[in-house]
Amino acid sequence: MRLDFLGTGDARRVPVYGCFCRACRLAREQPERGRQACSALLSCKGWRLLLDAGRTDLCERFAPGSLGAILLTHFHMDHVMGLFHLRWGEGQSIPVYAPADPQGCDDLYKHPGILDFRPLQPFVSLTLGPFTVTSLPLIHSRLSHGYLIAAAHRSLAYLTDTVGLPVDTLDYLQRQRPDLVVLDCSKPPSAEAPRNHNDLNQALYLAAAIAAPLCLLTHVDHDLDEYWLDHPELPAGVSVARDGLSIDL
Amino acid sequence: MRLDFLGTGDARRVPVYGCFCRACRLAREQPERGRQACSALLSCKGWRLLLDAGRTDLCERFAPGSLGAILLTHFHMDHVMGLFHLRWGEGQSIPVYAPADPQGCDDLYKHPGILDFRPLQPFVSLTLGPFTVTSLPLIHSRLSHGYLIAAAHRSLAYLTDTVGLPVDTLDYLQRQRPDLVVLDCSKPPSAEAPRNHNDLNQALYLAAAIAAPLCLLTHVDHDLDEYWLDHPELPAGVSVARDGLSIDL
Ligand SMILES: [Mn+2]
Ligand SMILES: [Mn+2]
Ligand SMILES: [Mn+2]
Ligand SMILES: [Mn+2]
Ligand SMILES: [Zn+2]
Ligand SMILES: [Zn+2]
Repeated sequence: MRLDFLGTGDARRVPVYGCFCRACRLAREQPERGRQACSALLSCKGWRLLLDAGRTDLCERFAPGSLGAILLTHFHMDHVMGLFHLRWGEGQSIPVYAPADPQGCDDLYKHPGILDFRPLQPFVSLTLGPFTVTSLPLIHSRLSHGYLIAAAHRSLAYLTDTVGLPVDTLDYLQRQRPDLVVLDCSKPPSAEAPRNHNDLNQALYLAAAIAAPLCLLTHVDHDLDEYWLDHPELPAGVSVARDGLSIDL
Repeated sequence: MRLDFLGTGDARRVPVYGCFCRACRLAREQPERGRQACSALLSCKGWRLLLDAGRTDLCERFAPGSLGAILLTHFHMDHVMGLFHLRWGEGQSIPVYAPADPQGCDDLYKHPGILDFRPLQPFVSLTLGPFTVTSLPLIHSRLSHGYLIAAAHRSLAYLTDTVGLPVDTLDYLQRQRPDLVVLDCSKPPSAEAPRNHNDLNQALYLAAAIAAPLCLLTHVDHDLDEYWLDHPELPAGVSVARDGLSIDL
C-alpha cells in the first residue's frame, strides 16, 4: 500500500496570499515547501483511493476511470473544492464515501453529476477494492470522520480535521495499532486551547497515546511552518508530512 | 478600457472531463480552444476590475493589492470558486460587489476573510475607480446581474448568466447603446426553450435587439463548440469569445 501526500496545508495553504512571513517567503522560493489543500492518494494493486478532494486539478491529475473511489473526511470547502469540477465529467460514475452530513457542500447533493455520494456510519467497516475502510468519529466544526484503512496486512489511520479525539476513537486506534498515523497538526503550541484543529502540543500528545511506529503531521499552517524554522526538533517516530511525500507501507 | 477574457466556458468547461467529442478532443490538442470558468478582467488607467471569480488561480494571477475590486454576476460556484482561496489572504481587503443574494455561496458570508461583500441594487450606478458600473437584472436560476460598465467615453455590457433578458434591461441597453456586448450563449440551437442559459438562436435574437457594434458570445459549452465546427457562420457584428482574447475599447 502506498500513500502519496497531495496536499498538507490548512485551508489558507502555504504560502498565504499577501503574507511575507519567513515561511511564506521560503515557500515561494522553494515550491516543494508549499502546502496545498490537505489530501492524499492511497494505491494498492493498481486500485486508487483519493482521500479528500480539495485540490482543484483533480481532472487534470486523474484520467477518467482511474479513481476507484473518493473518501471524504468532511464537507469543508478545502476538502471538497475539486468535486465541483469532477462532477461535470461524462462516463463512469465515481463513488464518493463521506460522513452522513445532511447538507453536503453548496449544491453537490442537488447536482451530483457523475459523483455517487454514499454516507458512512462510525465504526462500520467497508471493503473498497483491496482496502478495508473503517470510519472513526473526529472532533471538528463539521461532522468529520477519520479513517482506519487496511490493505495487504498493513494499516494506516488518516485523522484530519480534528481537535483532540473522541475517547472511543482513541481506544479503537490503540487496540488496532496502525502502522502509520496521519494527524491534523495545524497550529504551533498555543496557550489557550485551540478550536477545531490540534496545535503541536495536542498532536504530540495524541501521537504518543496512539503510539504508532510512525506519525506524520499534516494540515499545517504557515505559523507552524515558521515555528518549525526555529524549533525543528520532534520526538522519535513523529515527523512532518510535505506535499509530494510518498510512503510505502 | 481593455477587456481580457479569462474564461469563456460554462460550468463544465471545455474539454469536459471524460468526454471525447470532437470539440473536447480538439481542445486537448489545442489548449487555446479550451474554455475555463466564465470570467473577465477590465483594465483602465491601471485600475483593474475582475468580472466573476470562478478561476482557481486568482492568487497566482493577481498580486496582492493589484485588483481594485471584484464584480460578481451571481453566486453559482463556477463564478465564485476562486474566492475560497482569495479570502484567506492577508493585508488589504478586496471589495466584492454582487447582487444582494441573501445566501452567498457556502460559508463566504460567514468567513469573508479579506473579502468585503457589498450588495448592489438594479439600475443603480456606482463609481469604481475610472469605471461607472450599473447593475442590470438578468434571468437565471440564482439572482443574477449583468453590468453596463463605462469608462473613458466607451461602454460595454457584460450579460451572463441569463436566458433571455428582462424587458426593462433590454430597454435600458437599447437606450444606452453600449459599444460592446458580451452575452451568455451556452447551447447550440435547440427545439425546446432552454432553461437558465441562451441557446444560439436566443443569443442572436438578443444581439440583434441590442444592436451593439460588436457582440461577443461567451459561457460556451462543448456541444456548442462542436456545433460551430460544422456551422461556423455568424451574423455580422457577432463573434465567439475565447479564453485569452483581449479587446481594446
Ligand atoms: Mn481543512
Ligand atoms: Mn475543516
Ligand atoms: Mn455559469
Ligand atoms: Mn449560473
Ligand atoms: Zn505567512
Ligand atoms: Zn465534449
